[in-house]
Amino acid sequence: MRSDANLTAERPTYVTNLECSATGEHYPADTLQQLSQAGKPLLVRYDLARIGRELSRDAIESRPSDMWRWRELLPVRRKEDIVSLGEIETPLIPIPRSGGANVLVKDEGRLPTGSFKARGLVMAVSMAKALGVKRIAMPTNGNAGAALAAYASRCGIETVILCPEDTPEANVREIALQGGRVWRVNGLIDECGAIVAEGTRQGRWFDLSTLKEPYRIEGKKTMGLELALQLGWKLPDAIFYPTGGGTGLIGMWKAFDELEALGWIGSERPKMFAVQAAGCAPIVKAFDEGTDHAERWENAHTVAAGIRVPKALGDFLILKAVRESGGAALAVEDEATLQAVADAAGQDGLLLCPEGGATLAAYREALADGLVGVDDEVVLFNCATGLKYPMPPVENDLDRHQPIDFDAL
Amino acid sequence: MRSDANLTAERPTYVTNLECSATGEHYPADTLQQLSQAGKPLLVRYDLARIGRELSRDAIESRPSDMWRWRELLPVRRKEDIVSLGEIETPLIPIPRSGGANVLVKDEGRLPTGSFKARGLVMAVSMAKALGVKRIAMPTNGNAGAALAAYASRCGIETVILCPEDTPEANVREIALQGGRVWRVNGLIDECGAIVAEGTRQGRWFDLSTLKEPYRIEGKKTMGLELALQLGWKLPDAIFYPTGGGTGLIGMWKAFDELEALGWIGSERPKMFAVQAAGCAPIVKAFDEGTDHAERWENAHTVAAGIRVPKALGDFLILKAVRESGGAALAVEDEATLQAVADAAGQDGLLLCPEGGATLAAYREALADGLVGVDDEVVLFNCATGLKYPMPPVENDLDRHQPIDFDAL
Repeated sequence: MRSDANLTAERPTYVTNLECSATGEHYPADTLQQLSQAGKPLLVRYDLARIGRELSRDAIESRPSDMWRWRELLPVRRKEDIVSLGEIETPLIPIPRSGGANVLVKDEGRLPTGSFKARGLVMAVSMAKALGVKRIAMPTNGNAGAALAAYASRCGIETVILCPEDTPEANVREIALQGGRVWRVNGLIDECGAIVAEGTRQGRWFDLSTLKEPYRIEGKKTMGLELALQLGWKLPDAIFYPTGGGTGLIGMWKAFDELEALGWIGSERPKMFAVQAAGCAPIVKAFDEGTDHAERWENAHTVAAGIRVPKALGDFLILKAVRESGGAALAVEDEATLQAVADAAGQDGLLLCPEGGATLAAYREALADGLVGVDDEVVLFNCATGLKYPMPPVENDLDRHQPIDFDAL
Repeated sequence: MRSDANLTAERPTYVTNLECSATGEHYPADTLQQLSQAGKPLLVRYDLARIGRELSRDAIESRPSDMWRWRELLPVRRKEDIVSLGEIETPLIPIPRSGGANVLVKDEGRLPTGSFKARGLVMAVSMAKALGVKRIAMPTNGNAGAALAAYASRCGIETVILCPEDTPEANVREIALQGGRVWRVNGLIDECGAIVAEGTRQGRWFDLSTLKEPYRIEGKKTMGLELALQLGWKLPDAIFYPTGGGTGLIGMWKAFDELEALGWIGSERPKMFAVQAAGCAPIVKAFDEGTDHAERWENAHTVAAGIRVPKALGDFLILKAVRESGGAALAVEDEATLQAVADAAGQDGLLLCPEGGATLAAYREALADGLVGVDDEVVLFNCATGLKYPMPPVENDLDRHQPIDFDAL
């Protein structure tokens, strides 16, 4: 009980194979893979028919509520490969004043290292450990790097992490403190990714970039699994998701299909809203223009560093999910994002990160434009704790050696 | 289900009265109270015999795992008074490399506003709301103020929050962003408290200072309740707790007595170690000198801002619990604290706050001094997320326009 108090029990696993997300070509599970031969992301496939026969919703609900309750729908075979830092189920928090009576925030800032990146990285690092990887590299806008450093250091895997030079200071420092070899690069995340790719070609490390290996998406998928369970096996009417690389959106869409195949939910789906910043909105542009792939966004800039991703490898998967769902891709101005952060904190006591603020701003615009109704049940994803980001300064000093003007306090 | 997805069900309540912690004098429940007439903290009493007949450990375990599963042992009568921001059960995380095979960290940084202060403040603010309070004031070293501002803003209660001028910048800013009226004062927390007390005498606000009202301790008590449940209704051999005002230590000690009265645990208790900084160690001095009360510590200084409390109102309750438990009060140097933070982050991937680092440093010293054994099961309390505190700077720049020296990465 004691020393593995936060770990899952041993469970049977059901992974059958990996599959190219573009061509459907199969690849063997339990081998180290990056992209498919078509250069596209690989997806993990499970024997869902057998899971459906051998597992029930009630069994899942009776387990401890961390993300390992979903073990049969996850790729890690052996309990001892799980490199856990306590991946709790994140709470759904109403924001009635700043959002509305039917708006819930899924507060992903409660996860290890303070962001939803922990979901993907705990899975990818556990699988890397299981498959014998000794050195990992990755580009990051901050939070993914922090999660990678923490999990990798915990199991003795070396990491090289490259981030844009203006990545939030807290992110860079936590990566280093958690044992990552972190470098500030004079470029954006895809330009950092190009350096990682070159090192990968040279055989220097395993590449853990978004969607360049099959397992981060399996971790992110648990956001969709959790949401279904937390809402009584019924999905919300709409989901607003801050979209950079889009792994979480793609992952949730996959999760909903798997839950339906198990017979645990029906065929209804939430409208999926991919939220981007007006200063970096490649998915929004592609959505509006009706194309399947997105062009690189030049001169990307936004206060929401986490969604400053000029080019996403999974663009076609994001666009497909958004369109199938009847949702949309929406761009919001930084000013609206910062106002949303201030409103949620000041009125509902919930400190969002800028990317989370962007989802509230997008919800407000979608409501005004009639894309969602005021009675629709809506979930906004706050992808990280707001504490990592700059907050407005305070200039209130009180001299206790002078008479106190209590009326002014 | 939806809009109160994170709230408890309606439950019966069992509060009987309030009781002076020094004289045993009774006071009526469900009325607004500060200190007892003897100037000492009031404790909440319950009809434990009836709870024991009507509630079981199994019933508790079958509920959602947030802190409201303990509702019968908590003071809030009506569900609608609970001002929740998602008070999850915090995980226990092994730190085998930096701590040892039997060392678990209870990671309180996962709570709303990133610290264990949320436990006390959600309870005190919910009760203040229930009892009609409109304006609250409090001194803080940072985290308590952040929690107060968040919960109070959420239910429309105005707050005035006073902190030492060198309180961590992130704390001051989050208090303001979350709607608190925050003032930096040229003094320590007890000197801020004197200003709050003067305003209380003038009838300007309700005083939510540590132990000056009965409910913060009831919230903090849930740390002890959770620990018992998480460890299979068996307490650890030792608890290391960062001690400023000491509410949590007093609260856990009360929780253990209540659990024993219910017959849910036996009479065994952990050794309680009250951890202070060498630069502010009034409880350690009183413990070493065998006195019941502690003198104010002059010229208090430490990097662990949260435990820079020169004078604790509950000193006699802290000292009583520590002595009854067979534990000790221990002081650690800032250098050892910062080394412990670096070790836990770099070796186990867990970013502790300085106060949490102090508990690891104290554990190491207690182990060296034979106060605990290497086989003892130990729980360290990491009272807040490490992300709020300064971290060492990083000087690693990489110019992507120059040839990359991959061997140097």
